Amino acid sequence: MEYMTVRNAALAAREAERTLGIAATEEKNRALRLIADALIGNAPAILSANGEDVERERAAGMTAALIDRLSLDEKRIAGIADGVRQVAALPDPVGETVGETVRPNGLEIKRVRVPLGVIGMIYEARPNVTADAAALTLKSGNAVLLRGSRSARRSNEVITEIIRGALSKTAVPADSVILLSSESHESVAELTALRGLVDLIIPRGGAGLIKSVAESSRVPVLETGVGNCHVYIDRDADPVMAENICVNAKVSRPSVCNAAESFLFHRERPDLLVRVCSALRERGVTVHGCPETVALFPDAVPATEDDYFREYLSLDAAVKVVADVGEAIAHIAKYGTGHTEAIVTENDGTAEKFIREIDAACVNRNASTRFTDGGEFGFGAEIGISTQKLHARGPVGLRELTSYKYVVTGNGQIR
Amino acid sequence: MEYMTVRNAALAAREAERTLGIAATEEKNRALRLIADALIGNAPAILSANGEDVERERAAGMTAALIDRLSLDEKRIAGIADGVRQVAALPDPVGETVGETVRPNGLEIKRVRVPLGVIGMIYEARPNVTADAAALTLKSGNAVLLRGSRSARRSNEVITEIIRGALSKTAVPADSVILLSSESHESVAELTALRGLVDLIIPRGGAGLIKSVAESSRVPVLETGVGNCHVYIDRDADPVMAENICVNAKVSRPSVCNAAESFLFHRERPDLLVRVCSALRERGVTVHGCPETVALFPDAVPATEDDYFREYLSLDAAVKVVADVGEAIAHIAKYGTGHTEAIVTENDGTAEKFIREIDAACVNRNASTRFTDGGEFGFGAEIGISTQKLHARGPVGLRELTSYKYVVTGNGQIR
Repeated sequence: MEYMTVRNAALAAREAERTLGIAATEEKNRALRLIADALIGNAPAILSANGEDVERERAAGMTAALIDRLSLDEKRIAGIADGVRQVAALPDPVGETVGETVRPNGLEIKRVRVPLGVIGMIYEARPNVTADAAALTLKSGNAVLLRGSRSARRSNEVITEIIRGALSKTAVPADSVILLSSESHESVAELTALRGLVDLIIPRGGAGLIKSVAESSRVPVLETGVGNCHVYIDRDADPVMAENICVNAKVSRPSVCNAAESFLFHRERPDLLVRVCSALRERGVTVHGCPETVALFPDAVPATEDDYFREYLSLDAAVKVVADVGEAIAHIAKYGTGHTEAIVTENDGTAEKFIREIDAACVNRNASTRFTDGGEFGFGAEIGISTQKLHARGPVGLRELTSYKYVVTGNGQIR
Repeated sequence: MEYMTVRNAALAAREAERTLGIAATEEKNRALRLIADALIGNAPAILSANGEDVERERAAGMTAALIDRLSLDEKRIAGIADGVRQVAALPDPVGETVGETVRPNGLEIKRVRVPLGVIGMIYEARPNVTADAAALTLKSGNAVLLRGSRSARRSNEVITEIIRGALSKTAVPADSVILLSSESHESVAELTALRGLVDLIIPRGGAGLIKSVAESSRVPVLETGVGNCHVYIDRDADPVMAENICVNAKVSRPSVCNAAESFLFHRERPDLLVRVCSALRERGVTVHGCPETVALFPDAVPATEDDYFREYLSLDAAVKVVADVGEAIAHIAKYGTGHTEAIVTENDGTAEKFIREIDAACVNRNASTRFTDGGEFGFGAEIGISTQKLHARGPVGLRELTSYKYVVTGNGQIR
């Protein structure tokens, strides 16, 4: 495949965005439905390209877990197409009036949502991100530059060509979705240097990728997805609820960012620690505990300082005994990543303190950390979970991919 | 005065912010009123320090305009104190619930405003910014690191000491407001490198300062205040309104960012061009015109390409004849800075096209560009006008200095 240079791609995306950004909702939805149809209709071409990727990477020694993330089959393609159709069905955020006031001098001031502009996505192995990201950015009126993983390059090429082919039958310019070469790491450096041409960079992948992009980019970055999530089990926790929430938060899908990694227990409730740790152990979880934890639950292995910083993404959990909710809050302030922090307690005062003092995108009382998700929040779809405070925090759906402008209407007012 | 290192100042501010961020509204308001009283009560000390700054800079050859910006007198100090009292009277954005939903599984999800954290302000000569910024950040629960101009250092030192002295009588920690040394340029580089310790940098000053901070900072930056604002006078403009708006936009205060710099006229209305240019000329404005403008209005001097990019901030205006609203929009897309763009027209269709297609913080119909201002928008006070799309756009008031967190309340929900 012929690739544009990164700069030319950005210029082309910017030009496309001028049309896409003001496209009618129905035109964007039609484009999305055509994309979904084309993905299904061209499934054999996607599977063949994906087969090339999988074969090459398997031969190169990619782990089975990563091969699984890379692999597509008919069912997964149907799922991707379904996702695109769901985005078509969501309300269009662009043009929505989100505030309105009439000033004493008669000026009418409206705050209206507009697209951000050109978004650069930098992501790792999974080729479904290519279609997911294109659908979300298109619906929110943003052009997208996709910089996928080299290991998925053939899959990404074919998926992008299918999307662009579908767009060519609509009023949405094909250059609204452009795949960048993944041949060298240079394209990431070039993309993140285009301040002024690219409006936002969203890295999606491991903590290393996100950190390196965030620290080097000159374009503003939306940091997503690093979750060292905690559950604090308070003295006044309900034992059954504590067990259910901890098991769900750790075990239901350990590899995702909203899975819990650390559990903190109130010192006066050793019974809760033993109960929860036993339940975790039964599901295959290795408990890495502080000395008090190991004394109460001898199956635990001793935790190092490093364990409390880790996002395991595996069947491992760090456990610590704390004196009270204040120590739990201080521990989370030190080790947390600002993603999701939960408390299990029946005590309203304790819950209020935790909710007020914890600085994280989501603070949960008596609910699993696993609920931090665009679908679970009712956003319909998301492009990631923001762990930063600027612009958007928590699940990033269509609305969070927009900015706003003020429309000021007068009849000749001067100041 | 003894200064902390930039890093230690950031650590101290971060620690202070943990208390300030959850301080009660009444405690913050009491602190602000005490600050206002202390500024008035210590006016002689401020005036004496300001006198040192003014004398030193005058001897060093500072221009009269800059000396005026640097100078304080009793009236200006009273104005600063009044500004602080006004911030005390504004509603507290922190803790406000800005969205609420109950999911089908019974989870209650609230979006609650929280402070951003630690804000670094980098600003030029005017010492009133020291108190203005401290008041706005304090009220919005953010700690602030102030990096003022070297030329105002004694004034800034005394004002900061007065603020910290007032805070020491309250529950708001004095380290919520810390002045950084302005001795060397190094402190700017150090401050903008503290990603993770500082949450946001706001540069306030000329385009050069803002550009250099935005391009080098590793901490996210809120770009403010560069305004190459246009007024497009359409074929269907009311002549009196066109004249009034153009004169007001250009002449009422030429040195501010919401003053107009460029005027575009529809080719079919030479009468409007002549009328407006004559009115501007009468008020001392030099018109820099395209060849068509010069032919119609011989007092105009020929404009260079550079004139259309310039933010004059003076009694100069760039003027160009365009074929229609489409060419006006294209011109603004090329030369504008995304601050405020206005159209004067009685034609609804033309106005709608302009409003939809112009990409700027504020798009005005039949109103002067000078209205882009926190006070005029009803925000009560502002820290600047954002010209970027991420996080906040347009006037940045208390609300725009906050983020949010999701508070998720359940009764044992798991996924």
